[in-house]
Amino acid sequence: MELLKQRILQDGKCYPGGILKVDSFINHQMDPNLMMELAREMVRIFGRRPINKIVTIEASGIAPAILTGYLMQLPVVFIKKKQPKTMDRMLSAVVHSFTKDRDYTVCISADFLTPADRVLFIDDFLANGNAAKGVIDLCAQAGAKIEAMAFLIEKAFQHGGDYLRSAGVDYTALATVTSLDDCKIELE
Amino acid sequence: MELLKQRILQDGKCYPGGILKVDSFINHQMDPNLMMELAREMVRIFGRRPINKIVTIEASGIAPAILTGYLMQLPVVFIKKKQPKTMDRMLSAVVHSFTKDRDYTVCISADFLTPADRVLFIDDFLANGNAAKGVIDLCAQAGAKIEAMAFLIEKAFQHGGDYLRSAGVDYTALATVTSLDDCKIELE
Repeated sequence: MELLKQRILQDGKCYPGGILKVDSFINHQMDPNLMMELAREMVRIFGRRPINKIVTIEASGIAPAILTGYLMQLPVVFIKKKQPKTMDRMLSAVVHSFTKDRDYTVCISADFLTPADRVLFIDDFLANGNAAKGVIDLCAQAGAKIEAMAFLIEKAFQHGGDYLRSAGVDYTALATVTSLDDCKIELE
Repeated sequence: MELLKQRILQDGKCYPGGILKVDSFINHQMDPNLMMELAREMVRIFGRRPINKIVTIEASGIAPAILTGYLMQLPVVFIKKKQPKTMDRMLSAVVHSFTKDRDYTVCISADFLTPADRVLFIDDFLANGNAAKGVIDLCAQAGAKIEAMAFLIEKAFQHGGDYLRSAGVDYTALATVTSLDDCKIELE
């Protein structure tokens, strides 16, 4: 998606170790007009698919997910990274974060992820695919079908995409970063 | 706001210890049409105020904040509950969560909260006001002005509202819960 690519090249910042910072427009400060355009692109791609629920994971996926949910008139559920005190019928999965170098448990209520659900999962980044693995695990536990996954940005030099292809998960990224070598952003 | 009150009475669940669960429509599964109506109400209340930025805190404030930001055409920044590896010029504050019974550090980049900012802070709940205190602290550190705070739901039998009034912070709640005694939801 050209708008997102241009914005990444304009405002994205590259740090040693393959880190791409988009925190001035996507995952700390958010540009709501950009977010709405990203949601409209989601509708163009997925609007005719048999999806009945948007699922995301806190926190950076929530903004594009709620806007897409609004446009597609679908409920949006966000997977939590902390177990609330009062969640009944909780499904959980362990996820490893490379960025933060720790394991954490993600959870969702079985009340909101069921065998009737055909899910579009939305998140900001696909990197090593660990959050996506957790989502696949939760959906398997719930008996829900993942219709597709959509990411704002894929880091193609990491291995999340390989994993999703090998797992037979249909996924799309609105922008694909092919290299951050020498702190230079290269896009597909 | 009548729509929200009706929804709380219809779908909210009350648990011993003053816990109100709204996780089927606000803070786990989200109803995007309700969220958009809540955002429209924010615009009705705050649309003519000299606000140049929406601030919220992850995760449950993000959905109403991004929709309000979209309608008001303002950038939205979400305060983080974990310190990212790559945040420069970080401002931080310690917040005590009664619900989770622990202290945690919240942070925001000084790049996105500045002396030029006149902030509308949006969150899902005002209970004991601890998150709000953290926000006041961060805005003071940044030199930003809090124009107002807006909460979807206030628990008036807890003390966040008293604190904000004593601190001279203008705040609004779209629905006010006056009692959860005997697991019965009473609204103002």
